[in-house]
Amino acid sequence: MEIVNNPAQMRQMAQEWRAAGQKIALVPTMGYFHAGHLSLMRYGREAAHQLVVSLFVNPAQFGPHEDLDRYPRDLERDSSMAREVGVDVLYTPLAEAMYPQGYQTYVTVEGLSRGLCGASRPGHFRGVATVVLKLLNQVQPHLAVFGEKDYQQLQVIRRLVKDLDVPVEIVGRPIVREEDGLAMSSRNTYLSPEERAAALCLFRAIKAARELVLSGAKSRESVLEAVKGMISATPHTNIDYVALVDPETLEEVAMIQDEARLALAVWVGKTRLIDNTLLSESRLCCV
Amino acid sequence: MEIVNNPAQMRQMAQEWRAAGQKIALVPTMGYFHAGHLSLMRYGREAAHQLVVSLFVNPAQFGPHEDLDRYPRDLERDSSMAREVGVDVLYTPLAEAMYPQGYQTYVTVEGLSRGLCGASRPGHFRGVATVVLKLLNQVQPHLAVFGEKDYQQLQVIRRLVKDLDVPVEIVGRPIVREEDGLAMSSRNTYLSPEERAAALCLFRAIKAARELVLSGAKSRESVLEAVKGMISATPHTNIDYVALVDPETLEEVAMIQDEARLALAVWVGKTRLIDNTLLSESRLCCV
Repeated sequence: MEIVNNPAQMRQMAQEWRAAGQKIALVPTMGYFHAGHLSLMRYGREAAHQLVVSLFVNPAQFGPHEDLDRYPRDLERDSSMAREVGVDVLYTPLAEAMYPQGYQTYVTVEGLSRGLCGASRPGHFRGVATVVLKLLNQVQPHLAVFGEKDYQQLQVIRRLVKDLDVPVEIVGRPIVREEDGLAMSSRNTYLSPEERAAALCLFRAIKAARELVLSGAKSRESVLEAVKGMISATPHTNIDYVALVDPETLEEVAMIQDEARLALAVWVGKTRLIDNTLLSESRLCCV
Repeated sequence: MEIVNNPAQMRQMAQEWRAAGQKIALVPTMGYFHAGHLSLMRYGREAAHQLVVSLFVNPAQFGPHEDLDRYPRDLERDSSMAREVGVDVLYTPLAEAMYPQGYQTYVTVEGLSRGLCGASRPGHFRGVATVVLKLLNQVQPHLAVFGEKDYQQLQVIRRLVKDLDVPVEIVGRPIVREEDGLAMSSRNTYLSPEERAAALCLFRAIKAARELVLSGAKSRESVLEAVKGMISATPHTNIDYVALVDPETLEEVAMIQDEARLALAVWVGKTRLIDNTLLSESRLCCV
């Protein structure tokens, strides 16, 4: 495995692979790998000749009072995990190379970025869309693999790629959970033991919502009430949002017709956690 | 010459050319070709195996009270002119294909878009940046050729390509003028005979500025005063802006140190015309 931090060198490598007819997969990450990242890498490993994992804690997607500075980092550990999965290039550009002096170009995906995490984190998806487009242009992958935990992010990126005609396939992969159900997240390391226990309420609420829907509940009120009730009853928690949305447009729905996405963001102590699931009238969901 | 209007077909052709190792040039236009367009096409013809000229009157770069509806169009004439220059593909996508229902992604180049034409035409460069990025992704050219008449546009596109790491070379080509000096523009067709005569004041003012600088004038005031005076003295005219700016950042400069760009936008009757030139302390400019 090669570690590359120079964007020009990364682009050069990508061009050579392209010229040689090789298929390239990109897994964009902010590092501090967990089993969720590894599942994306394994998918990319199977799907392409060259697997690039980018590791970049992108300043443009953090608000001024967010956790950019304390976001967990451990390049040595990440390298050895990536090597073990068979990554070809770990791409670790510096912020100064990604946003040099005079930088001033930003991409916005308007409607999809407005609600949910976009409402709580102004500018977040502008930063995400911009950095993902840059990475796609630098690495020129045939496919790019993202996790469904950041479901709104995945929809924003799908839309960006469609709207701007970027020649890449976007692959979304299921959430990977701890054994007790907590969605894997690099931010889970922020949690104290009490908070870690409390954090389970996100998955418990998701399971409750699934069961409600399986038993015939269809209205937004019944689902949201159950979810909010379970979370509010848990100590150390504070709901940012709980929403039932159309899986593609992310617009709020009043009823579950066919399918809807339940998405939630909850503060557990000083850590903001997100989770989501597909709720379907007609079939059991297991994400 | 092939006429292609389907973006998917255009992309397919580009991919096949790329796979065959062929070099692709793109000349993006809004059609109604004049000698300026043809000079860009001839440059592209020499520089690449495959020459694509896009013809798209982009709604996203027109304001609500601008001339989108009456912008001149003549596909038959344009086709035969393009064919004569040796264009391989005339790419004429429909607005519904470029901005289908649900479209919501836009690119902004912040600082460079603010002044000059950006101040008079809010949203204009957002529309330009967005459509150019789409065209680059659809046609996947190795180089794209633009005229210097739209000097701010050229700088916005250079910045966009640099900031977003788009793998393309941007080529800027000199302004082409009528015999009497009027910069070629599809909008010149709007002018009545009296207005056509009045429109010459833009080039006369540019020549006067060049001579002033050659004779040693360096201050912003001396140059702008002369330019504004000449235009104001011409009937049917109304100055939108006259500016002396840094050629790269487009920020206003107080003195000509080494080089500056003189840029002007003038209403002649109901037609808004633009022109610009390089002013250099040390050498004669002939653009």
